[in-house]
Amino acid sequence: MKCKICKGEVYITIKYPKMALCKEHFIEYFEKRVKKTIKKYEMIKPEDKVLIAISGGKDGAVVTYVLKKLGYNVECLHINLGIGEFSKKSLECVKKQTSYIGVRCHIVDLKELTGKGIPEVKSRKPKCSICGTAKRYIVSKFACDNGFNVIVTGHNLDDEASFILNNVMNWSTGYLARQGPILPQKGKLPKKVKPLYELTEEEISSYAEVVGLEVFSEKCPFAKKAITLEYKEMLNKIEETRPGTKYRFVIGYLKNRHLFEKEIEDIPLMECKICGMPSSGEVCSFCRTWELKEEIDLKVKG
Amino acid sequence: MKCKICKGEVYITIKYPKMALCKEHFIEYFEKRVKKTIKKYEMIKPEDKVLIAISGGKDGAVVTYVLKKLGYNVECLHINLGIGEFSKKSLECVKKQTSYIGVRCHIVDLKELTGKGIPEVKSRKPKCSICGTAKRYIVSKFACDNGFNVIVTGHNLDDEASFILNNVMNWSTGYLARQGPILPQKGKLPKKVKPLYELTEEEISSYAEVVGLEVFSEKCPFAKKAITLEYKEMLNKIEETRPGTKYRFVIGYLKNRHLFEKEIEDIPLMECKICGMPSSGEVCSFCRTWELKEEIDLKVKG
Repeated sequence: MKCKICKGEVYITIKYPKMALCKEHFIEYFEKRVKKTIKKYEMIKPEDKVLIAISGGKDGAVVTYVLKKLGYNVECLHINLGIGEFSKKSLECVKKQTSYIGVRCHIVDLKELTGKGIPEVKSRKPKCSICGTAKRYIVSKFACDNGFNVIVTGHNLDDEASFILNNVMNWSTGYLARQGPILPQKGKLPKKVKPLYELTEEEISSYAEVVGLEVFSEKCPFAKKAITLEYKEMLNKIEETRPGTKYRFVIGYLKNRHLFEKEIEDIPLMECKICGMPSSGEVCSFCRTWELKEEIDLKVKG
Repeated sequence: MKCKICKGEVYITIKYPKMALCKEHFIEYFEKRVKKTIKKYEMIKPEDKVLIAISGGKDGAVVTYVLKKLGYNVECLHINLGIGEFSKKSLECVKKQTSYIGVRCHIVDLKELTGKGIPEVKSRKPKCSICGTAKRYIVSKFACDNGFNVIVTGHNLDDEASFILNNVMNWSTGYLARQGPILPQKGKLPKKVKPLYELTEEEISSYAEVVGLEVFSEKCPFAKKAITLEYKEMLNKIEETRPGTKYRFVIGYLKNRHLFEKEIEDIPLMECKICGMPSSGEVCSFCRTWELKEEIDLKVKG
């Protein structure tokens, strides 16, 4: 088989849409897809100040690389979660990635900042749930404190498909009403967007490799075998015999999301009395879990 | 492990709800579940005249056996589809089953009746789709012609879960609006019910074995590897580590079905000008596909 475009040596065979591409034309294809996704869902305007949340993994690194190449005004934020060696290695990889890409990277050290990393926090909730709360909170607060109006995350097609499938299996209609490629700005909270929404993990890994991005792929020691990982495997198995299943499932979901939207009430957000960030209760879930007495300041000095 | 109830020898270990049972108490459990399902969804009243569609497989045989044991007024209908050896063996098994149970069984021979069995029908539609149309039509017409007011089919929890999952994966909201344990009577069409709706294939196979029902389990030569079979396998895999997944998924669907119902229009049914049965067009899909010039008469003589 030869590259569909130049008949050169094949680097990757994409299953949906079915085509073989050389390195050069795969890079071109991948970046066009990201560009198209940004345009289709009206994710980022040229004048936006964009904050990208990165962990050291392939998704954040790739989305940073492409957005920078496309000329957007981007900076990165990495949160050191304080999970021993795992966090140390994540941070090292983030530093290599952002210096390779040539993008400014802010580091927030959760333990230095609050006295408690993920291991030290006491809560009845599962670690992964607490960690999610912390990451969402720090990224939003950092964006607010420093004037970023768009937050980018590296969520990909596989993440979205397995997340939607899990919510369908549980009939979590509230989540099904709110999921999607963009979450509009709401009060203080900046808009959140997912430029890799229509790209698969396989494509993203291949892109990282071909542009020379080092990626950290170790599993967090707290991570249990999540059901969404099982759903990812299942979806990949179906994808083998029926290419395009994941894409059609996610796009079909977006076309039918309105069915679930009817069910939810729009809960008016209050302001957390500790930090002033939007909250569904008097004190937001982060300030409550971390037992904070005063607002953490994430404003970058100098 | 011992039987949960009598401490006797274990015949089966049910995963959800988790319990080990001996033969006698498994039979009791199984029949109670069927009884409960019938009551919960108001499926059958004692005075109903019930027609059960049977193919020779485990589901039809088991539902017939249990309904007869519970004292309902039931008769069976088997359709000889004219698919060579496969249909011959199905018919033989049906005869053994109904004579073992002691229930009257009507046989409709599709080829004798119309000149065409499934292999002879010409259509661009897939064979499985044509066969479905034929079976639904003949069963409904037979029930109408002979005064049955309830039609029973053997659909089980695995069938329903994989069917719903497939329709979610394709976002076939029309199907998602109409699926369920009962399909109410509509015009001439009798009510259709599924008394095995909450029982798994594994439970049904074990019940067939323990009460001594012979079952035909050969695959139809026309059957392709259906996607619903892949979904059945996937759901069984998840069920292994998360018992109750299939049950919760199906029951959750029923609770949320109203979300999809809002989307469908209630298309008024016409009467087929050939046979007088309800139809969405001038001629119903069966009369059209079989190129019938006049109504087939399924009234039982004598």
